[in-house]
Amino acid sequence: MSLFSHQHLFDFAKAVFMKMGCSEADANIACNTLLSADLRGVDSHGVARLSGYVRLWEKKRINPTPEIKITYETPSTAVVDGDAGLGLVVAPFAMQVAIEKAEKAGTGWVSVKNSNHYGIAGFHSLKAVEKDMIGISMTNASPLVSPTFSKERLLGTNPIAVAIPAQEEPPFVGDFATTPAANGKLEVLQRKDADAPLGWIQDEEGQGTTNSHGVKEGGAWLPLGGTREHGSHKGFILGSVVDIFSAVLSGANYGPWAPPFVSYLEPAKDPVGEGLGHFFGAMRVDAFRPADEFKSHMDNWIRRFRNSTPVDPKQPVVIPGDPERAMEQERMTNGIPLLQPVIKDLTALGKKFGVRF
Amino acid sequence: MSLFSHQHLFDFAKAVFMKMGCSEADANIACNTLLSADLRGVDSHGVARLSGYVRLWEKKRINPTPEIKITYETPSTAVVDGDAGLGLVVAPFAMQVAIEKAEKAGTGWVSVKNSNHYGIAGFHSLKAVEKDMIGISMTNASPLVSPTFSKERLLGTNPIAVAIPAQEEPPFVGDFATTPAANGKLEVLQRKDADAPLGWIQDEEGQGTTNSHGVKEGGAWLPLGGTREHGSHKGFILGSVVDIFSAVLSGANYGPWAPPFVSYLEPAKDPVGEGLGHFFGAMRVDAFRPADEFKSHMDNWIRRFRNSTPVDPKQPVVIPGDPERAMEQERMTNGIPLLQPVIKDLTALGKKFGVRF
Repeated sequence: MSLFSHQHLFDFAKAVFMKMGCSEADANIACNTLLSADLRGVDSHGVARLSGYVRLWEKKRINPTPEIKITYETPSTAVVDGDAGLGLVVAPFAMQVAIEKAEKAGTGWVSVKNSNHYGIAGFHSLKAVEKDMIGISMTNASPLVSPTFSKERLLGTNPIAVAIPAQEEPPFVGDFATTPAANGKLEVLQRKDADAPLGWIQDEEGQGTTNSHGVKEGGAWLPLGGTREHGSHKGFILGSVVDIFSAVLSGANYGPWAPPFVSYLEPAKDPVGEGLGHFFGAMRVDAFRPADEFKSHMDNWIRRFRNSTPVDPKQPVVIPGDPERAMEQERMTNGIPLLQPVIKDLTALGKKFGVRF
Repeated sequence: MSLFSHQHLFDFAKAVFMKMGCSEADANIACNTLLSADLRGVDSHGVARLSGYVRLWEKKRINPTPEIKITYETPSTAVVDGDAGLGLVVAPFAMQVAIEKAEKAGTGWVSVKNSNHYGIAGFHSLKAVEKDMIGISMTNASPLVSPTFSKERLLGTNPIAVAIPAQEEPPFVGDFATTPAANGKLEVLQRKDADAPLGWIQDEEGQGTTNSHGVKEGGAWLPLGGTREHGSHKGFILGSVVDIFSAVLSGANYGPWAPPFVSYLEPAKDPVGEGLGHFFGAMRVDAFRPADEFKSHMDNWIRRFRNSTPVDPKQPVVIPGDPERAMEQERMTNGIPLLQPVIKDLTALGKKFGVRF
């Protein structure tokens, strides 16, 4: 593991995106989105994925010069067609549309089709907070999750992010996959050949397993809740709502038709829509009550919860968004750690494009 | 256990609400809301709660003749003041405002303050489906749930419902408390003095327990996910978002300040808002794409998931809303079963008001 500065990784990724044919403006947007994952500690969604995006571009599944446009709208809604562009660029465009709708109509809601993976959900929702709005962001993804009672993989880990502004306190930022844990945590266990907790995944036959390789071996992630007795049908509902808002509302591929992120798996031969889907929302807090009033009550909410009596005095209650914000400050100052396999992968990528890593 | 017709229970509850001073119109609305819980099989939220509402009215915490009004609005949003009325009446008013906003602006979002318990979340979300809209309904509630790492009860079981129309298929209706199970299921175990599954609740010290009386004895419900390892911080985020959308946006009491449903517990002496809060959303599906197109893709979504390969051939995948719809048909035809203690309670209530049960 070695440390790299944010600037170094940004410049490298920007050069690679430009070699793919992206405009400089789009490459900047893509890098802001991508690097926010590394800064916030979601290492699986940052530069470690850069060569994955390149491979999709090589297969002509990513269009580096998309004409992203609104194809349908009302005062508070829109559908955006991403023209097969990088989700890292399509999503900021769509979130901006939601914010502009909210400025006029109080709220804005945008469903996106024909896109690709969009980085971390929380990054997009935070854009609304800068404007004193509540931001909502969700996306469907490659099918890895089985509905309760099923042994087929029909849903992605379909994350949801909600960011809420406060006055003196930093914003509340909830950002979570609708599975018991993030896929990145399973990958860590796989590398160590360690067991996964029971209640995360099931095997090919649909039986709960601790084999951390279970998903790769034909099994599936369980929905949040884990077992039926512990409410997995609720996680199934959440993942389904993300899928429907992101893809059925927009006209993207939903459920098992969602195109896989990995380039060695082909998209479905019988698509039900175009590309991957996302869904964004922006709600002006002053569309409900004066912004200062709302934000000072959010301060009170956050302080009451943060100061709640902990079970273990050494582990206080965590306000959603706090750990990622601390990580971002730390990594911006001290650098972003990358694992050896990622460094090797990026070095090879640099060689291919004549860009020094 | 005996069976009672829907009409009988409706007429009885209507007479009781009118004895409380409700207008006939309001009593009809309240009974429609209340009885939908009995019909859909959520027995804990139906007529079994009638005497609870009466006791709150006796303590002057429910106003039988509220002046429910919009106090703040934009083209796509509103805040509704319930004037301390029955949530069973306030919520249908607010959902109707959301639907009317959506007719003009594409979507409508209404946050409600100064209300009381509103019955089952799913009932309200279904109102939007009748208009080819997606309906969303949530409410905060008496504090029973501890955030991850806390031993205090700071959140209610804060349910979320999302109802989505289809064409030939019945609608998708997800309706769930943001805890591993519904409180009613714990009450069933308490009556039998049986153990609860580990991962539902914690004791007074914040340790996981199988004691089904744990919550009453100073413990708390855990958020959906159960343990930190299984994603309880995600359930905590969900419960928090419901609380903030329902109460911080509107100006109701949030978190531990939410007024308790039971009349023997007094509301907080230092309220941070007015009454209980709810949040409703309505999104016209044709604000995104032609309604027929959306609904036929929903048919396809529902059929693909319903026909998914099950783990156990005898237990097919359940589409959210299917069991409650089947129950509603069955109970409308054959009657609604009530337990002896409920029958006794309603008989006593009838005597008090001179209404025959």
